[in-house]
Amino acid sequence: MTLLLASSWGDMDPYFGKWRELLSGQPGGIEVRLYPDELGDVRDITAALVWDPPPGLLAGLPRLRLIQSLGMGVDHIFKHDDLPAGVPVARLVDPDLVARMSEYCVHSVLHYHRDADRYDRDQAANRWNPVSHPAASTRRVGVMGVGAIGADTARKLKLLDFDVAGWSRTPKDIPGVAGFHGADGFDAFMQRSEIIVCLLPLTPETEGILDARALALMPVGGGIINAARGGHVVDADLIAALDGRKLKFAKLDVFREEPLPKDHPFWTHPKIRLTPHNAGITNPVTAAAEVAENYRRVERGEPPNNIVDPARGY
Amino acid sequence: MTLLLASSWGDMDPYFGKWRELLSGQPGGIEVRLYPDELGDVRDITAALVWDPPPGLLAGLPRLRLIQSLGMGVDHIFKHDDLPAGVPVARLVDPDLVARMSEYCVHSVLHYHRDADRYDRDQAANRWNPVSHPAASTRRVGVMGVGAIGADTARKLKLLDFDVAGWSRTPKDIPGVAGFHGADGFDAFMQRSEIIVCLLPLTPETEGILDARALALMPVGGGIINAARGGHVVDADLIAALDGRKLKFAKLDVFREEPLPKDHPFWTHPKIRLTPHNAGITNPVTAAAEVAENYRRVERGEPPNNIVDPARGY
Repeated sequence: MTLLLASSWGDMDPYFGKWRELLSGQPGGIEVRLYPDELGDVRDITAALVWDPPPGLLAGLPRLRLIQSLGMGVDHIFKHDDLPAGVPVARLVDPDLVARMSEYCVHSVLHYHRDADRYDRDQAANRWNPVSHPAASTRRVGVMGVGAIGADTARKLKLLDFDVAGWSRTPKDIPGVAGFHGADGFDAFMQRSEIIVCLLPLTPETEGILDARALALMPVGGGIINAARGGHVVDADLIAALDGRKLKFAKLDVFREEPLPKDHPFWTHPKIRLTPHNAGITNPVTAAAEVAENYRRVERGEPPNNIVDPARGY
Repeated sequence: MTLLLASSWGDMDPYFGKWRELLSGQPGGIEVRLYPDELGDVRDITAALVWDPPPGLLAGLPRLRLIQSLGMGVDHIFKHDDLPAGVPVARLVDPDLVARMSEYCVHSVLHYHRDADRYDRDQAANRWNPVSHPAASTRRVGVMGVGAIGADTARKLKLLDFDVAGWSRTPKDIPGVAGFHGADGFDAFMQRSEIIVCLLPLTPETEGILDARALALMPVGGGIINAARGGHVVDADLIAALDGRKLKFAKLDVFREEPLPKDHPFWTHPKIRLTPHNAGITNPVTAAAEVAENYRRVERGEPPNNIVDPARGY
């Protein structure tokens, strides 16, 4: 059995090198090859650990028994509709990654809740102007998607006293967090949320969910934080909502095209703060054991952990 | 019995007006006068609710039975050494204020932990440069002072996975937080803490505690967050530590003179971010009941809650 590390992104070698080192060092050792230079005989490959895999690559591996995502999301795997039939796709659910993602979201919520930009402007203008902000208990935050990351984010925001609601496809119960679900619960959820934190999986159902109609439901002066996928946001609609003074801010870690094209208007929009899709980068040190465990499971003929339902897309 | 609201600061009238409204509306009603315009007969005044009271004012109130601070700290009351003998001084311990303060500190820690300024610079430069940051579990934060605010801050940082230690005058036990105390524990505490959060009371013992010697103990590249009192920091020593590349940042909410003088070097220092002493502003809506309770207690001849030990200064 051999595991292939593959991505269509450039310059992944240092990162993949770290993965190789850690997977090789797992109990029993795992033989690792890096695509494309070390592909060799495709019949050797039984598992693929991938991020945005090159189109057609996976279908050309005849003995593949596991497609393991390098991240929590799997949209990058399903997007080309060229997967080999019957090969299980597994998400990575790493507590370290969950913590990094929820940390990013909590920080972003606090930044806008505390109106941090105001004090940077005041400092630059040599202006002393203390203002008392609303208490967190009166700040209504809405978390879209309450899977592992969303639930952790909602829980942490709640511990910081925010008034938190969650929205998900099916009902979820998180203590102290108001639950909304499905199409029926969507409008009420958007209407009550001053700050939206998007942590949804990207599926045909959620593509473009943050469009003009959805943003129009939000309270005036609110904002969105998107740490999920660029495809959740309709870029032009977001810019229109910001320019039309409906929304005050957007914090974006993810984009429809990444790296974000140099001439995209998000770069220079005064109400948009962006980060380069690094809210949570999978740490091989903490995640290698989970990948190795899935590798061993398929080796033993067992189903991998955190398997994805292809019909649902997550 | 009558309560006097007094401060040597300008422009407190709107804020004091809110206090008057809320105290008057407490069960039984409380008669409130605003200094200086409504002082009237000083023999009527039995309680004073104060922030940085005018020197000599309190000693001139012959029937005073309670000096109630408008904030958690009481250094603004003790600083002139002109208090009437035997009149109890009480701190305000309001859960709303505790939450605001710890929220400010958590936000500030996350800002530097996530290297947020880097991404603002990258965005301004049209530069896509994802970096993975250290996990919170490897980030050593040191909370100086683990009273109500410090303990809440340490607990919340711990829930966000930070590696947290606390330092206090006497031993304190917070689950999951490494405890250091007294002069003997100070150096080890400073040496292990990349990010220092100062929440100490200002007393003769803690005045200037963050001086050149203390800052030199910290790991290179660390920083400090001061949400306690300006007197804890030796301004010139902090600037030297930042300029000498020992420290990477300082976030300051409090200053030796407030408002911070227009020509103070903190305003324009590239590694200093400042806020105008509004990390936590006491909210009369949540705190009025506590003040009213203390007023009633002295009225009944009982000692007030949260009384300060004058010898200790907090």
